Amino acid sequence: MADSRYTLDELAALTGSVCEKSGQSGIHAVAPLETAGPGEISFLANRRYRGQLAETQAEAVILPREERAEGCAFGVLRADNPYLVFARIAWLLNPRPVPVPGVDRSAVVAASAQIEEGASVSAQAVIEADAWIGPGCWVGPGSVIGAGVAMGAGCRIGANASVLAGSQLGERVEVLPGAVIGSAGFGFADAGDHWEPVPQLGRVLIGDDVSIGANTTVDRGSQGDTRIGDGCKIDNLVQIAHNVQIGEHTVVAANAGISGSTRIGRYCRIAGGVGFVGHLEIADGATFTGMSMITGNIHDAGVYSSGVPLMPTREWRRSAVRFRQLDDMARRLEKLERLMETTKDRDGR
Amino acid sequence: MADSRYTLDELAALTGSVCEKSGQSGIHAVAPLETAGPGEISFLANRRYRGQLAETQAEAVILPREERAEGCAFGVLRADNPYLVFARIAWLLNPRPVPVPGVDRSAVVAASAQIEEGASVSAQAVIEADAWIGPGCWVGPGSVIGAGVAMGAGCRIGANASVLAGSQLGERVEVLPGAVIGSAGFGFADAGDHWEPVPQLGRVLIGDDVSIGANTTVDRGSQGDTRIGDGCKIDNLVQIAHNVQIGEHTVVAANAGISGSTRIGRYCRIAGGVGFVGHLEIADGATFTGMSMITGNIHDAGVYSSGVPLMPTREWRRSAVRFRQLDDMARRLEKLERLMETTKDRDGR
Amino acid sequence: MADSRYTLDELAALTGSVCEKSGQSGIHAVAPLETAGPGEISFLANRRYRGQLAETQAEAVILPREERAEGCAFGVLRADNPYLVFARIAWLLNPRPVPVPGVDRSAVVAASAQIEEGASVSAQAVIEADAWIGPGCWVGPGSVIGAGVAMGAGCRIGANASVLAGSQLGERVEVLPGAVIGSAGFGFADAGDHWEPVPQLGRVLIGDDVSIGANTTVDRGSQGDTRIGDGCKIDNLVQIAHNVQIGEHTVVAANAGISGSTRIGRYCRIAGGVGFVGHLEIADGATFTGMSMITGNIHDAGVYSSGVPLMPTREWRRSAVRFRQLDDMARRLEKLERLMETTKDRDGR
Repeated sequence: MADSRYTLDELAALTGSVCEKSGQSGIHAVAPLETAGPGEISFLANRRYRGQLAETQAEAVILPREERAEGCAFGVLRADNPYLVFARIAWLLNPRPVPVPGVDRSAVVAASAQIEEGASVSAQAVIEADAWIGPGCWVGPGSVIGAGVAMGAGCRIGANASVLAGSQLGERVEVLPGAVIGSAGFGFADAGDHWEPVPQLGRVLIGDDVSIGANTTVDRGSQGDTRIGDGCKIDNLVQIAHNVQIGEHTVVAANAGISGSTRIGRYCRIAGGVGFVGHLEIADGATFTGMSMITGNIHDAGVYSSGVPLMPTREWRRSAVRFRQLDDMARRLEKLERLMETTKDRDGR
Repeated sequence: MADSRYTLDELAALTGSVCEKSGQSGIHAVAPLETAGPGEISFLANRRYRGQLAETQAEAVILPREERAEGCAFGVLRADNPYLVFARIAWLLNPRPVPVPGVDRSAVVAASAQIEEGASVSAQAVIEADAWIGPGCWVGPGSVIGAGVAMGAGCRIGANASVLAGSQLGERVEVLPGAVIGSAGFGFADAGDHWEPVPQLGRVLIGDDVSIGANTTVDRGSQGDTRIGDGCKIDNLVQIAHNVQIGEHTVVAANAGISGSTRIGRYCRIAGGVGFVGHLEIADGATFTGMSMITGNIHDAGVYSSGVPLMPTREWRRSAVRFRQLDDMARRLEKLERLMETTKDRDGR
Repeated sequence: MADSRYTLDELAALTGSVCEKSGQSGIHAVAPLETAGPGEISFLANRRYRGQLAETQAEAVILPREERAEGCAFGVLRADNPYLVFARIAWLLNPRPVPVPGVDRSAVVAASAQIEEGASVSAQAVIEADAWIGPGCWVGPGSVIGAGVAMGAGCRIGANASVLAGSQLGERVEVLPGAVIGSAGFGFADAGDHWEPVPQLGRVLIGDDVSIGANTTVDRGSQGDTRIGDGCKIDNLVQIAHNVQIGEHTVVAANAGISGSTRIGRYCRIAGGVGFVGHLEIADGATFTGMSMITGNIHDAGVYSSGVPLMPTREWRRSAVRFRQLDDMARRLEKLERLMETTKDRDGR
């Protein structure tokens, strides 16, 4: 993809790593250990893949400090965090295309909207009244930016995404295709024989360097705001309900759902398919494994799980039936223990 | 947001509540108890928040009948259902913007489509042949209305939503951004070494006052129709498969999935992440808590759950392993009970 | 919907079935047994519905070989697989509308894009540079086809779908409305106090005759490619992460999620709401029931499940609490067994 070639010394200087042994030729691409060839750099982050080192044809490999590399044919960069250095080198070799500034003639931009310098508005996009598109932003094809939306410098809005009235994005926010930011929250008052909608008057406030996945939905607040802190990374098809707050640098994997007014801390890790009921408080640094169901507050960082393991269906049916009897089983177990205790006492054992 | 001010007497008359004590000045906004100030009205629906009454700076508060309010500084509206009265006042103070009637010049509208009086078609929208857009409807930017679609008065179709051929919407239906109504159902016949698609010939029929959430999908019927009854409220990222029927005023929260041909009753409450297998019958008034898995018919109203509670992962692993042994444990428990019984009999206890 | 009429003999010849008994008039439509009338053909695939045979008003019925049909009033087609023959007849009677070839004047097509003969590009669509749209493809309204995308003959891209740069589609691929193909995978390197994005350089490679559901997301690979084999059928709102590989003719129902680098075999059946963690290997022919959680490799074809069954919430709470104590219960059960054993030994039983 890129024509540029870097020496290992240059890459070391640019990425905060150390060049321990130079390669023979420049580096022009990244590749996995198994498939890398001349001119390509790879990395070893997981000891499980050490075996591949002996066979790799890579021009150079980024190795962790402790990994021995005597007699290897490839050049060596040393790093505390080889994957991070690899990511930075991958960006050097594959820079994001710089969007051509300007507004495509098929886009519809309200007269009162403001498009800052270097911003790019793609074909068929819509930008409504009083929206502010910061410098260098890219607004993708078919996307809709609602009235009064503001987005800081360097945001990227994917194809057919919708960022609706009342949303405020920080800098370098990435909204992937089809995502919906700022839709009305799910708020209805019980009127006895029907539900009446409650106006959703709050905003969505998104910090800097946030990524919002494809077809993910983030609802605006009902009265207060929905907030996603700096550096959060949200995957595809995630639901973030009204008035949710997510602390800085938390990651949320695909298919997760966070119900209304739940507050999630900073540096949390939420795996795929996880569900939170509403109005919870989740401590900083909490980790949830896939498909966990969270129904109460979490006071401490730590790793949490729920669910039951996969089984062949025939066996699973037997366990599942017994789950229904679990309380009964527990009571019967207690009864047996008491009986046994009585027997022991009586027999003087 | 709004310039209008109302006296408490006016608000009482407009919302079916009782003004027990007038405030000092008019009401121009709604706000939560903690943040409300002069000119703002709040409400108390949950006794948990009573403590905030003493401290609130709200101009007025909507209180339930039984809540004491002697000596309070704020004006008082009395209501059986304070949240409902609050919602109605919030709408009075924050009326929906009335869309400007007419068709944006960037929209593409088929010659045979009919756009009724007061309807508004936004930028980049597409309206295909023979579609009928009722009076006062709002068709959002980038949305697609398929051939022959009919929507009653006052519908609102969000940005980038798709309402496809064969869909019929009642009045005041709200389709949030990115939702897809009327896509082909997931129907394939097993042809031994491959799957052959089965034509999906049915429609989607949606009643009055239904809300369909952002990026939610509702498939058209295979032969019969998919039906969503009056007053249903469907949240974001919900899957409603072909030939599903949902009774009036049922609510379905985000990430839920309803498989083909399942019939859900009226006034059901389905929480987030719930899954139904196909061809089920679910009684009126049934409630399902979050992430429940429904694999059989439900004959009675009531509250149902499944899943297991969250635990620290280290402890969860131990329980999860034992779940696999549950049938074995139950059999061993029974054996011990029989042994104990024998012992008792023999010992004459 | 269709004007054409077929005799049963014609239908038999066209679909590989046997006409056992002719009907009175031609067939012009398909319908379910309960509602079918003159001129309509139905089928019996499930013995559960045999009772409807006596009452049906259908002109003809497709029956399995073993089903007796003496004295019936309707015409009879015999087939090994009545549902498959029904599907084929339904297509004959309801052929897909052939899209009008050409590019709608509101579409935006890059000069370097190539639109082959008979392809149709709908209103408001965007086709970016160097894309190749094969013969007879239909590109729906509001959809976006990214730079360099290639799609084989007869593909159908739904309304507001996005097929992004780096995606390659085989022939007759169906992408339903709102689906996103080729979005950036969820790849971030841990930089201590923040996450840094890892460039997603791979492609999405989709085989022939694949169907991708509405609002489903398929991420491009990080280095290697994401691959979906020939004949796969993917339902709505499914997440397919970067570098996932799915073998031929596997079906995945709605709301399922497949995490990064997992490889799923051929002819698998994955029900709704199922979740896979990353880096798994799943054998050909494996079946997973709804909402299963798969955390380990699957070596054999077979049927697998997880989860616990639905219960009234009051009872469920008791079982759920006991789940937490399950390991303790198991240990206490073992202790009782040992005690009982000791008692038996000592008593000489």
